[in-house]
Amino acid sequence: MYGRYTQDLGTFAKDEAARLRLQEGDTPQPRRPSELLEYTQGRCAPCRVCALQCQRFLISKVGEDWVFLILLGLVMALVSWAMDFAIATCLQAQKWMYGGLDTNVLLQYMAWVTYPTVLITFSAGFTQILAPQAVGSGIPEMKTILRGVVLKEYLTLKTFVAKVIGLTCALGSGMPLGKEGPFVHIASMCAALLSRFLSLFGGFYENEARNIEMLAAACAVGVGCCFAAPIGGVLFSIEVTSTFFAVRNYWRGFFAATFSAFIFRVLAVWNKDEETITALFKTRFRLDFPFDLQELPAFAVIGIASGFGGALFVYLNRKIVQFMRRQKAINRFLMKKRLLFPALVTLIISTLTFPPGFGQFMAGQLTQKDTLVTLFDNQTWAKQGINDEFEYLGILEAWLHPRSNVFVTLVVFILMKFWMSALATTIPVPCGAFMPVFVIGAAFGRLVGESMAAWFPDGIHTDSNTYRIVPGGYAVVGAAALSGAVTHTVSTAVIVFELTGQISHILPVMIAVILANAVAQSLQPSLYDSIIRIKKLPYLPELGWGHHEKYNVRVEDIMVRDIRYVTLNCKYRDLQQVLHSTKMKNLPLVESAESMILLGSIERTQVGALLSTQLSPQRRLLMLRQKVLPEDGHRLSDSSIRFQISTETSSGTPARAALRKPLKPALKRVPSSPADSPPAGSTDHTGIALKSLFCANAATEPTEAQGTAYHKAKRVRISIVEEMILGDKMTPAEILEWEEQQLDQLVDFSSAKIDPAPFQLVEHTSLHKTHTIFSLLGLDHAFVTSIGRLVGMVSLKELRKAIEGSLTGKGVKVRPPLASFRDSTASTSEADTTALRQLWDRHQHHHMPREAGPGGDEDDDTPK
Amino acid sequence: MYGRYTQDLGTFAKDEAARLRLQEGDTPQPRRPSELLEYTQGRCAPCRVCALQCQRFLISKVGEDWVFLILLGLVMALVSWAMDFAIATCLQAQKWMYGGLDTNVLLQYMAWVTYPTVLITFSAGFTQILAPQAVGSGIPEMKTILRGVVLKEYLTLKTFVAKVIGLTCALGSGMPLGKEGPFVHIASMCAALLSRFLSLFGGFYENEARNIEMLAAACAVGVGCCFAAPIGGVLFSIEVTSTFFAVRNYWRGFFAATFSAFIFRVLAVWNKDEETITALFKTRFRLDFPFDLQELPAFAVIGIASGFGGALFVYLNRKIVQFMRRQKAINRFLMKKRLLFPALVTLIISTLTFPPGFGQFMAGQLTQKDTLVTLFDNQTWAKQGINDEFEYLGILEAWLHPRSNVFVTLVVFILMKFWMSALATTIPVPCGAFMPVFVIGAAFGRLVGESMAAWFPDGIHTDSNTYRIVPGGYAVVGAAALSGAVTHTVSTAVIVFELTGQISHILPVMIAVILANAVAQSLQPSLYDSIIRIKKLPYLPELGWGHHEKYNVRVEDIMVRDIRYVTLNCKYRDLQQVLHSTKMKNLPLVESAESMILLGSIERTQVGALLSTQLSPQRRLLMLRQKVLPEDGHRLSDSSIRFQISTETSSGTPARAALRKPLKPALKRVPSSPADSPPAGSTDHTGIALKSLFCANAATEPTEAQGTAYHKAKRVRISIVEEMILGDKMTPAEILEWEEQQLDQLVDFSSAKIDPAPFQLVEHTSLHKTHTIFSLLGLDHAFVTSIGRLVGMVSLKELRKAIEGSLTGKGVKVRPPLASFRDSTASTSEADTTALRQLWDRHQHHHMPREAGPGGDEDDDTPK
Repeated sequence: MYGRYTQDLGTFAKDEAARLRLQEGDTPQPRRPSELLEYTQGRCAPCRVCALQCQRFLISKVGEDWVFLILLGLVMALVSWAMDFAIATCLQAQKWMYGGLDTNVLLQYMAWVTYPTVLITFSAGFTQILAPQAVGSGIPEMKTILRGVVLKEYLTLKTFVAKVIGLTCALGSGMPLGKEGPFVHIASMCAALLSRFLSLFGGFYENEARNIEMLAAACAVGVGCCFAAPIGGVLFSIEVTSTFFAVRNYWRGFFAATFSAFIFRVLAVWNKDEETITALFKTRFRLDFPFDLQELPAFAVIGIASGFGGALFVYLNRKIVQFMRRQKAINRFLMKKRLLFPALVTLIISTLTFPPGFGQFMAGQLTQKDTLVTLFDNQTWAKQGINDEFEYLGILEAWLHPRSNVFVTLVVFILMKFWMSALATTIPVPCGAFMPVFVIGAAFGRLVGESMAAWFPDGIHTDSNTYRIVPGGYAVVGAAALSGAVTHTVSTAVIVFELTGQISHILPVMIAVILANAVAQSLQPSLYDSIIRIKKLPYLPELGWGHHEKYNVRVEDIMVRDIRYVTLNCKYRDLQQVLHSTKMKNLPLVESAESMILLGSIERTQVGALLSTQLSPQRRLLMLRQKVLPEDGHRLSDSSIRFQISTETSSGTPARAALRKPLKPALKRVPSSPADSPPAGSTDHTGIALKSLFCANAATEPTEAQGTAYHKAKRVRISIVEEMILGDKMTPAEILEWEEQQLDQLVDFSSAKIDPAPFQLVEHTSLHKTHTIFSLLGLDHAFVTSIGRLVGMVSLKELRKAIEGSLTGKGVKVRPPLASFRDSTASTSEADTTALRQLWDRHQHHHMPREAGPGGDEDDDTPK
Repeated sequence: MYGRYTQDLGTFAKDEAARLRLQEGDTPQPRRPSELLEYTQGRCAPCRVCALQCQRFLISKVGEDWVFLILLGLVMALVSWAMDFAIATCLQAQKWMYGGLDTNVLLQYMAWVTYPTVLITFSAGFTQILAPQAVGSGIPEMKTILRGVVLKEYLTLKTFVAKVIGLTCALGSGMPLGKEGPFVHIASMCAALLSRFLSLFGGFYENEARNIEMLAAACAVGVGCCFAAPIGGVLFSIEVTSTFFAVRNYWRGFFAATFSAFIFRVLAVWNKDEETITALFKTRFRLDFPFDLQELPAFAVIGIASGFGGALFVYLNRKIVQFMRRQKAINRFLMKKRLLFPALVTLIISTLTFPPGFGQFMAGQLTQKDTLVTLFDNQTWAKQGINDEFEYLGILEAWLHPRSNVFVTLVVFILMKFWMSALATTIPVPCGAFMPVFVIGAAFGRLVGESMAAWFPDGIHTDSNTYRIVPGGYAVVGAAALSGAVTHTVSTAVIVFELTGQISHILPVMIAVILANAVAQSLQPSLYDSIIRIKKLPYLPELGWGHHEKYNVRVEDIMVRDIRYVTLNCKYRDLQQVLHSTKMKNLPLVESAESMILLGSIERTQVGALLSTQLSPQRRLLMLRQKVLPEDGHRLSDSSIRFQISTETSSGTPARAALRKPLKPALKRVPSSPADSPPAGSTDHTGIALKSLFCANAATEPTEAQGTAYHKAKRVRISIVEEMILGDKMTPAEILEWEEQQLDQLVDFSSAKIDPAPFQLVEHTSLHKTHTIFSLLGLDHAFVTSIGRLVGMVSLKELRKAIEGSLTGKGVKVRPPLASFRDSTASTSEADTTALRQLWDRHQHHHMPREAGPGGDEDDDTPK
């Protein structure tokens, strides 16, 4: 928000101007026909007037938030339902094939394995071709986008289509993959597309701040319509995507998510799947005595174990990704045959789950949904002493193995699914990890519950009534705890209540989730943060749980003191030097090197543009022409023709392309063209190709080694110069001389865009507060000032380093080296005072040597 | 946070210094004995070492967040349970008295009426005497405190005691008052006290940012342990107290609230009230078919009607308060007899609820808790066609009147309770409005449910099974909707799920709550915002639902352009003038009047201190002495004695008291002494009483009318001057002359505290973004700059005015007058450029007239 002031201001002003023009051009037009119609006495004139008025009214309403949210909820509910329907059909098809071929085990195996392999391979290939951005969960990217970073191509129609189709195929394959994360991404894309569509009816959707608010609501819708869990959806999306949450956006999320969940469940009723709107995985635990107080330790054990398990899952997932990347041989092979890795993984996993094979020991024939339904079941599976007549009915049969018992099946299921899920989520298809983890958690909870039921067959409570232990309740607790541990969220508790339709286990669930979070957060980052680190997305890490040292580190300990700056009275040569010596994207503009008073900040590209304008051949030729003009009148036409030719050769596209080509190898930045294009594009509209080239050049140079950069720039300039010889009659030596002359001129900043109020901190601001301000305002850098004077700069990088440094070296790095030099308040306040006095003294001497007298006069009076 | 930079820095530096000193002095001390002990060969030396190590470990753990949160949760659960126990005892006592006197109706009436009147009067009197800050809900105050405003005496032990005892008595009286709001306040006080107590063990609790985070968690604990609703508590407290919520605090709230709710419910089990941990108002609705889709319109009707009802409640509550204030005759009378109003209100309400009287038509004999239990009941009250055998059992009897039917009772109950609750919550006792509103909502829902049940005796669904309508479900929906409408929150939905232990009605509840919020928010502010406005607490109103105009208003349209400033090279006379001409608490410090470059901001009190130091008699005498010193050696001792005497008379407390007394009536600010004392106190430690007096004086003066302020200041100064005549030998005329001389000197800022980085905005910042930044950072003012130049200022006042202006005049005031002059981007960017060029030109001419040459040289070259 704050960091992008300059862009903002420009675009905002332009948008508003455009809107105003639009309004001026637009609103009178629809009004005029209707006004005219009222006076024309046709047959259906009143009808048409009415229709027009309705239309106008509707268009005016399109801008309202609630219309947008309802549309978003509706679309997402339909998408979710249609996708669920398609996935169910896919899974049924697999089951049907598998069932139909029961005469031949080999054929059965072929069908069981080929079907998911084809689907996953198709999904991976389709996504890869259409939009590689659709791969993976999408929550890490949404977290980054909501922080204010613009990720390209992440919210386009192409990505939407790729994600929806890819996800359907991936889930239809029956692999342990989830729907939640991708759905957050799909909902966000849907919101972005919807707002672009609705902006056709009015300019309300062009505001960036508003779009970000809508994206936050869309994340809630994504989770809400995926699980029919509006409250849990809102909370989960807040926890997962936001650092600071604007409470005024709260209702948006609730409204949209509720509407979406409602429509999603109404569709089920309409499709005769359900009799009325109920929970997705409805449980029927007893209400009067849901659990005994003495069972709480068991729930706590589930929580703590889930915490360790969650951390292990995140660790395993990251290690698999890193292993695949590090093994260069594998990597090179896989890069060539991109679809081989998904196919291979699918093959292994489906082979292991093949029901007549190893799958019989891990309920391999059950789909994810069936697994959950059975795990949340009300009955106790383990055989209990007296009443042994319990029978495994229907799909529950899968858990029963004639030569093994339920405990073994559960343990095998948990262990196998654990690594399978961690592996499957690294496949480059659109997929999430929430649901697989949720299922594993439920199985673990069930295991603990069944053990408890076997241990206390008649329940623990030995009062008047006998209350048996309900293992299904343990499954609910385990599901919430493990998914909470992996995602570092507490709201999974709410999600399970909404999923099961029962809230009676609230205390066990809350206790387990909190314990799981406490353990997992102290061991590993959340799965989404882990992916952010793997993908190296620009994000600020969280401050950990109650590390006090963060309050003692101050900005002055972490800031960069030796920064380059631009002064108001500098020469172009200074600009050149600054550009060569620093990589900063925003340069501070100070009044003068002595005063160091911060006036604003100027973007690097702007500085480059200033320089290239100053040194542009056009300007040189213009100057030449001006020199020539008064000398000889008849050479005017000749020079102007030459001038025209020169501009044409330099700004024409073929010449430009020819210029660019040889430059690239010289700069050794082959894949840099997309990175180069934005600055080039932004200055391109001025129409001077060479200028933009120069500008882009100056901006990207410092990413090279510092030493060679200058020489390369020289070389580039000379090559341009060589090109230009055709255009004008100056020799390269003359041109160089002219350029040197130009560089000695004072900079004219009047054409540059300057951010007039960059964010400022003071030296004493604590790391904690700096982190808060950076994440609140979405900054990526801030200048450190002391009474108007620039003293340093802090960027996201320094902050990240400081936080990670102070977090990893817990006991040791409590105070960074610099902090230990500061022990009392006296020194710092003195420093302030000194700075102020310097400033003051300077003013005394420079501006009013006369007025400094009176103070001295009195001293002179004393000796009288 | 940001607005209180200066204080922060000072206190932070001091705190840290203190902590360092403490650490240096502390940590070696406990270590030394143990180290020594390890070498001394005593009998129980190992034990003692072990004990010491344990102690050290415990002390180191005290600083951890979770220890604090557990302690807070534990204490609050105990307080909540003990209070509930006391309230239940009080209510039982009343019932017992009422039941015991059933022979005589008059005696019964006397008992019924006197008991609550005595309790309420005691509560009002006790609170009034001990801590008037304990009156009312406390949520509005907590909202203000969490925004960063320091409210005095709101978090002290005295207020805590007053609130706990006052609340217990108030609720014990059986009036329609609530516990939730006060509990938020009590939990916050508890957190503040606890952190002060724990800071005895270490310095971890001195950080302000951390304390604010803990207060936010405490608010969640308050709601959580009041209703045994941890999730709802966290969400409600976020919605009610925060504008921007830091997600990293989320777990704190959850952790503490869960622990607190757990302990609260465990106490009930331990007390044999319950068999195990269940919901507070457990319901037993059927799980398989909770409601029909066709019932949804009825739920929507409840939502919309609740929205109107909620807005009406807020309006009524405010009107009652305003009426009481406006009627001067009543007001004066009540001010004298403060306890009369509570007694009167209690008398009226308890008379009307007297069971044998009017109370029989409104279930008057039921306590709030019983009312809720009966309203959430599973049975249908209205007689249904066929199966008429339903009987009113137990406490349900209260709703049945032999000569009337249930509908009449419910309608009377709703209407009577509505105005009673609105009236009762204006009584000056600690009380909230949530619970009464919740009960009214439940009754309204029940009314709709019973009507539906009467209309469709066999349910709407006409498929295979007959599912009757469950009026209890409607009561749950109504309770959530009305309380949501009054408080403008969505999380009441979660609270009802946790209160009833059933989540099956999630969709109806969500729909009703959202509709109720939509209606209520468009009509009235929330109850808490309404109280904030009545109490005139410093708070920023919310931006409404989707008002687009807020995106078009910019800072330049609302900022104050004509602001006073202090320049670096100003004279004391200028300071004086600035102080007299403005009321601003923070004055901008600029480089010079021409450049207007903002350097920092200086507090008003600091400016006052500078002035008073310059004009202080001490300084005058010192100067006199310096003048005298070189002239005559032997007069040194004499003058020094005289000097000593003069300082003694001026700084001695009796003299000061004498000085202060006559000043106060002159300034006509009788109740101003507490307001005066902070600035006086803050400068008092310099030891110069007169200086502080002057300083406080200068700071408070401008609250008077502008015209007379200067004269008063003169008078004050002369009266001091008269006092000082005894001290030195100068005549008043001489002193005045000396002072005039002093005022012409240049200001020495080196001793003043200056905020080196005040918050800056630019002119084009939109109102929306300004609001966001102000509420994010808790600012109360921001300077508007343009490339370093100060151009204006925006304070909370302007912002509030702008928001309220743009909200009330919806269609009309879309763009304020100034905004209409700005139509294209050209003019604004031109203004920037012009400003920059001015600055640049100035530098060109002032600093380097020589270097401006080269640019001109080339132009000179051309004619050659």
